[in-house]
Amino acid sequence: MSSFADHRDYIGVNLTRFHKATIVQSPRMLLGMDCLEPGQSQPPHRHAGRDKFYFVIDGSGLFTIGDEQRCLGAGEIAWAAADVVHGVTNVGTTRLVMLIGMAPEPA
Amino acid sequence: MSSFADHRDYIGVNLTRFHKATIVQSPRMLLGMDCLEPGQSQPPHRHAGRDKFYFVIDGSGLFTIGDEQRCLGAGEIAWAAADVVHGVTNVGTTRLVMLIGMAPEPA
Repeated sequence: MSSFADHRDYIGVNLTRFHKATIVQSPRMLLGMDCLEPGQSQPPHRHAGRDKFYFVIDGSGLFTIGDEQRCLGAGEIAWAAADVVHGVTNVGTTRLVMLIGMAPEPA
Repeated sequence: MSSFADHRDYIGVNLTRFHKATIVQSPRMLLGMDCLEPGQSQPPHRHAGRDKFYFVIDGSGLFTIGDEQRCLGAGEIAWAAADVVHGVTNVGTTRLVMLIGMAPEPA
């Protein structure tokens, strides 16, 4: 992207796993879209030294952050601080569309 | 916040300037809400060594990023890379509600 983007241009489907698209990336931050079809999961994983947030734009998901689980819908946020295990499953009946951001570790 | 939040809990009004609220902050990333009433502006400014994004949730605004200007509405994104001048004016008739994120400079 240049300075402006529309998240709808980054929505997509990946039936074998889930859809990921990078909107913008710098050495300091990555901003992207994750889209999960109903039943798809992003298995629990962690990013060494990197914070990550999910902002739910559409649909709903069951989020795992550390040892907490919560079902979130549009307008809600999940935050995984650096090194905290996180994942999400689309437990709804429509596509789960999320803006995600990740901030790399300070050197 | 803990691991979960609702952006609606961070919406607010500041009639003397504009509303800002921090949702979560770490050494690596800040996530927050900026809300501008109709006619309010966030004057052009820059963050040394920090990237910033705006994600428009509600309303519309005229964004300045460097020497570009664009009117954005819900679902659109503005990205100011580190040190790039940026600002926004609510040119609409309803509250402009934005999720914002900033990633501090690498050390």
